[in-house]
Amino acid sequence: MRGKALYESLILCEFFEDAFPEPIPHILPEDPFDRAQVRLWADHVGKQIVPAFIRTVMAQEPEKQKQNLEEFYKVVGTLVENVRGPYFLGEQFTLVDIALVPWVVRDFVLAENRGYSREAAGQKWEEYAAKLEVRKSVLRTQSNNKHYVEFYGQYLRNEAQGAMAKAIRAGRPI
Amino acid sequence: MRGKALYESLILCEFFEDAFPEPIPHILPEDPFDRAQVRLWADHVGKQIVPAFIRTVMAQEPEKQKQNLEEFYKVVGTLVENVRGPYFLGEQFTLVDIALVPWVVRDFVLAENRGYSREAAGQKWEEYAAKLEVRKSVLRTQSNNKHYVEFYGQYLRNEAQGAMAKAIRAGRPI
Repeated sequence: MRGKALYESLILCEFFEDAFPEPIPHILPEDPFDRAQVRLWADHVGKQIVPAFIRTVMAQEPEKQKQNLEEFYKVVGTLVENVRGPYFLGEQFTLVDIALVPWVVRDFVLAENRGYSREAAGQKWEEYAAKLEVRKSVLRTQSNNKHYVEFYGQYLRNEAQGAMAKAIRAGRPI
Repeated sequence: MRGKALYESLILCEFFEDAFPEPIPHILPEDPFDRAQVRLWADHVGKQIVPAFIRTVMAQEPEKQKQNLEEFYKVVGTLVENVRGPYFLGEQFTLVDIALVPWVVRDFVLAENRGYSREAAGQKWEEYAAKLEVRKSVLRTQSNNKHYVEFYGQYLRNEAQGAMAKAIRAGRPI
């Protein structure tokens, strides 16, 4: 577009909100304070939850896996405390839910390989995750699990060479 | 506010845009594509430039200091290539400039302690930084350099114990 790329999934979501104001529902609430809350918690997903997920997948030693999984539970827990239900902000499906959904639909990778369970993250997380994964727009846009398994195999063996894997190893932002 | 805090400087800036739409000038452009560019590059400041700055300050071994300073020049250079001048987006002073200003007014810490110079980052950076630091709103809101020196002394000796220092040491997002 205009010879320049747009990237970063959350910024793209804001771009679509700005560029196409007409259709509803919106993924940001109208109220400025709620908008800020949504941005803060979407940021928490990107800065805390996603890196903790990837670090848990990439960890090789059992002790490191356990330690990273505990951190994943912890940063998920902080978010869950603020979930109004059924979605993060209540009835409206917002940017926080959108940021989180990809990691909910692939949390089976953690369950099958790193001893994670939704139950261990608490009942509120179980209920919230269950609501997210059955939403029609989510079901329509997710990949077949076998593609996730192929993709995450490299991460589970810590052999991934993409930008995200390298950033995680170097302790740099993803 | 409503029993909940707002934080994260860039999200606060967006909050003020949303909450007070009346006064101009705005810190986000009207055009959706430009808005996305501004958000992308403000994100680059927070995720790349600021951590590289802090890592350079905290590094103790000369080799590490040099390596981090090179990375600082590199991530500054990527942004500078996209500066339209006089400000990032042209005449309008936006969120990118706002995100960068605090680090421009304290880059003397790097110059006095880590061998940094604006000149070494290129003429375009020199010009852009010079424009930023003399803007009236910037002059009115900056601290006396002696407070920066006290604050950064702890970082320069790698003795700082705040959340930012700990995150940098652990390779976690700040």
